[in-house]
Amino acid sequence: MIYLDNAATTFPKPDIVYNAVMEAMKDFGANPGRAGHKLSLRAGRGIYETREVLSVLFNIENPMNIIFTNNATEALNLGIKGFLKKGDHVITTTMEHNSVLRPIIALEEKGIENTIVRCDEKGFINIEDIERNIKQNTKLIVTTHASNVTGTIFPIKEIGKLARKHNIYYMVDAAQTAGVYPIDVKEMNIDILAFPGHKSLLGPQGTGGLYIKEGLDIMQMKEGGTGSKSHELIQPDILPDKYESGTPNTPGIIGLGAGVRYILDKGIDSIRNHEKELLKIFLDGLNEIDGVKVYGPANIEEQAPVISLNIGDEDSSEISYILDSVFDIGTRSGLHCAPLAHETLGTLEQGVVRFSIGPFNTKEDISKALEAIKKIAVEAR
Amino acid sequence: MIYLDNAATTFPKPDIVYNAVMEAMKDFGANPGRAGHKLSLRAGRGIYETREVLSVLFNIENPMNIIFTNNATEALNLGIKGFLKKGDHVITTTMEHNSVLRPIIALEEKGIENTIVRCDEKGFINIEDIERNIKQNTKLIVTTHASNVTGTIFPIKEIGKLARKHNIYYMVDAAQTAGVYPIDVKEMNIDILAFPGHKSLLGPQGTGGLYIKEGLDIMQMKEGGTGSKSHELIQPDILPDKYESGTPNTPGIIGLGAGVRYILDKGIDSIRNHEKELLKIFLDGLNEIDGVKVYGPANIEEQAPVISLNIGDEDSSEISYILDSVFDIGTRSGLHCAPLAHETLGTLEQGVVRFSIGPFNTKEDISKALEAIKKIAVEAR
Repeated sequence: MIYLDNAATTFPKPDIVYNAVMEAMKDFGANPGRAGHKLSLRAGRGIYETREVLSVLFNIENPMNIIFTNNATEALNLGIKGFLKKGDHVITTTMEHNSVLRPIIALEEKGIENTIVRCDEKGFINIEDIERNIKQNTKLIVTTHASNVTGTIFPIKEIGKLARKHNIYYMVDAAQTAGVYPIDVKEMNIDILAFPGHKSLLGPQGTGGLYIKEGLDIMQMKEGGTGSKSHELIQPDILPDKYESGTPNTPGIIGLGAGVRYILDKGIDSIRNHEKELLKIFLDGLNEIDGVKVYGPANIEEQAPVISLNIGDEDSSEISYILDSVFDIGTRSGLHCAPLAHETLGTLEQGVVRFSIGPFNTKEDISKALEAIKKIAVEAR
Repeated sequence: MIYLDNAATTFPKPDIVYNAVMEAMKDFGANPGRAGHKLSLRAGRGIYETREVLSVLFNIENPMNIIFTNNATEALNLGIKGFLKKGDHVITTTMEHNSVLRPIIALEEKGIENTIVRCDEKGFINIEDIERNIKQNTKLIVTTHASNVTGTIFPIKEIGKLARKHNIYYMVDAAQTAGVYPIDVKEMNIDILAFPGHKSLLGPQGTGGLYIKEGLDIMQMKEGGTGSKSHELIQPDILPDKYESGTPNTPGIIGLGAGVRYILDKGIDSIRNHEKELLKIFLDGLNEIDGVKVYGPANIEEQAPVISLNIGDEDSSEISYILDSVFDIGTRSGLHCAPLAHETLGTLEQGVVRFSIGPFNTKEDISKALEAIKKIAVEAR
């Protein structure tokens, strides 16, 4: 299959990721941080090494401020629901994923207010619209780094500056960027950073994480065994134990470490440039096909390599189905768990067909995708 | 290493588990249930098959009533904190793990009362002590199926009957038994069952689950993308989507399915009999070593294959250290995240050295462990 669904999860992964997962399972498959024997210590070390490489990638000072979660969704829930208290106000945008919107909406019944700032039809946010909505009780701004529908890149450094200026905290959803676009939590004033492990960080599914700036008061979602302060019936207050109860996904986290090492070795710029090159070929090619409507910026400097389109008035899921069954091309149709983004684009009814590029896609993949789209567009006329 | 830390996580796993994980990662590493293309559908089918084999194992009618979690701790938190409401009373026991006790204690500040029933010095629960503590507002009884410290088996069928008689719900923590001891949610009146995937179910770390009886009102811990009802800003109410936001641990869950299939093929009785045989050799052997104190029932019919002991007054972590460094035997010392169990046993200061047997241990492992204990006991005299 020509896999162009990398925004959902990257596939394939680098070989060192597969190997790291297998090594963790077969050579030292013990429970980390629980016992003191060799295999347990080795598993614990493996997990710590993943914290270390992530700290390098995101410029995080203390690796213990990284919390491992099952996915970005869990990280976003922990950050949003653990941080906001009754009476607080949170600002977010219409381009967010349901993993940001649904927790924020769910908090309404706990007395936490929200403002969802409308983006324009290409998915761009106007920073002044954020600033205009800041109130006395605004505690947090949450935005994506890049839309999972149109790829539209948000000016997170500028939003971070704005948040700092108003003494508000800033949380970034890096689901579509972590591992490809530079993220520096210090330089960008990011207080809370949520990321999936299995997308551009190239780790296995079942991994994600949350960076929490030192000293932030975030309530844990789970209590349980932490392998620390076991005599106490209340959850220990030390990081990361406070948030990491129970046996972690050791092989997954160690595989994630291998994915991040691959990125650091290869160079994040080199990976991004490869993806941008393919994105350019794709956008240029689409430009020449009649009857195709491309959503979002359609510009490689303003969007991550996520391309959403429609062909005439055809239902997006019908197009995805043909791409899969006739052309063996994997894409994702529908609403991509981002209803307000589709409302913003005007595609709530039709959905869109989303193509998303990963580090292992080739120019040949893109030209085959373009050929297929052309054929379908001709048929649809 | 002679690995006798299977109560923390089983190691090794059957080869089919390693193979299933690799196949899921390499052959169809897509995001399940999100897109409609072949690889995504195959990943989704793999996850559903794991629900199916677990349903067979636990006699669960509808596989969709099984929720996948990161570990048993998350499952216990979801079941306990999602089910209990302000004004409710919950009964549990002193033999519980911190993953039961800490959530229950944390609920006190939300106005949820608890009674922690004291077990005897071998870890046995007296059912009458549970019944005596039932109040008008008692909504839930939570007990372990077998202690993670002494292996003491709880009469869950009888407790289930008691709960039913009083119209109270019953939740079982099967962390030490799922995959080795028979569990039948219908026959045993179990309303909520929490289990780890990576212990006796032989799956990878990063897996666990919660069975929720049809119709129980349990609040989700996380909201987010579910791949269903994407146009809505509130979490969908259908199972399992309500509780499974975000990308799941697909390779882990598929590996868990392989572990459960291994158990079903081999026969749960055959695995249990093997472990009981080794337990008997171990207990008989310990009986002949002077200076060793064994905790719990010391009886293969009354305990899971978890054996806790001390040698004279030696610190338990010192003994575990010697077992690892001199004899290459992996055990776990300390409090095992179960402080009230240790208080019950009178070992809060010394801790205990825990040996736990898995399906791949051999008679030779046990005789080597006995030899090592004997040598250390002679030295310690």
